[in-house]
Amino acid sequence: MRILVVGATGTIGKAVVEEMKDRAEIICASRSKADIKVDITSVESIKQMFKEVGEIDALVSAAGGVHYTSLETLTPELNQIAVQSKLLGQINLVLLGLPYIKDNGSITLITGVLMDDPIKTGASAAMANGGVHAFVKAAAIDMPRGIRINSVSPTILEESFEDYGSMFEGFEPVPVKRVALAYKKSILGAHTGKTFYVY
Amino acid sequence: MRILVVGATGTIGKAVVEEMKDRAEIICASRSKADIKVDITSVESIKQMFKEVGEIDALVSAAGGVHYTSLETLTPELNQIAVQSKLLGQINLVLLGLPYIKDNGSITLITGVLMDDPIKTGASAAMANGGVHAFVKAAAIDMPRGIRINSVSPTILEESFEDYGSMFEGFEPVPVKRVALAYKKSILGAHTGKTFYVY
Repeated sequence: MRILVVGATGTIGKAVVEEMKDRAEIICASRSKADIKVDITSVESIKQMFKEVGEIDALVSAAGGVHYTSLETLTPELNQIAVQSKLLGQINLVLLGLPYIKDNGSITLITGVLMDDPIKTGASAAMANGGVHAFVKAAAIDMPRGIRINSVSPTILEESFEDYGSMFEGFEPVPVKRVALAYKKSILGAHTGKTFYVY
Repeated sequence: MRILVVGATGTIGKAVVEEMKDRAEIICASRSKADIKVDITSVESIKQMFKEVGEIDALVSAAGGVHYTSLETLTPELNQIAVQSKLLGQINLVLLGLPYIKDNGSITLITGVLMDDPIKTGASAAMANGGVHAFVKAAAIDMPRGIRINSVSPTILEESFEDYGSMFEGFEPVPVKRVALAYKKSILGAHTGKTFYVY
């Protein structure tokens, strides 16, 4: 089994690699410091990555940037950060990666708690999460060759709480291990069109 | 009370105008054939519209194009139709229109049933709907000056069933009057961050 993990050097990506490494050959992709370099905001970079990687059984994304700012200071331009990265970056991974995924393979994308339980400054992030969430649900019933697609929606992580916790007052942080298990269930299980909530 | 209706010449827009015209001064905007011309895929066109219209109590959107195609034929380029129009067109109406909305005014955007109950060929539409839905929920808690924001999610309309019904086999069509009432509730009611489902 070959798994391509995009965003493999982030906190969640590393935990997914750790969780799956005894079960599969893992190809790590990220903006830097990984087997394969990829910028998911670039269609060309995604195409180049899949050409280099070739056939895979599972596509995993733990990647996607967003910009946090109050609604009154959110501009169309600042909103583009989440649009190009977490929303379209991940959707383009699906659209361009599909021919490389083997029959009965799987795709797992990332969303996040802010689509369900918002914070001030989180409207752009919520948009990206909600867009990916609904895309996955719809794409699941239109997938060719038995390919499955799910998403994982984590809340704030224990491992990130020191850096981001002040934005998430009152949220109950979860260990990244739980998020990695959700990815494992998506990759090795039978669900499709499902959101694995890790709240 | 002044209401700006964007997409005023469409089936839903016309019904909203009909429903509200005895209660308010309505300014109709659409790509063509309305008081004000606007192309919501253009930031400049949206800015120009608000300059012309000036202060309003309610911003209503019944606008937004999407492209229907199977997942295997959906390209990043074709997906841009829904991204630029139904998703970002509407979000940019909010971001650029906010300064023109009076204290305690309201914003009502449109999503749609495909984010909850998908069809084949509907992944791009679902993405746009889900993105707007989550944006509205998050933006509601970060709105200045008591401004409210909601969305209306209609299913297929009786009035559109002859043209689009074959894509929506088994769906129960609703009269557009019910959708207009949901807009009315959003405009005249007290809710914020709510999705009015008209299924």
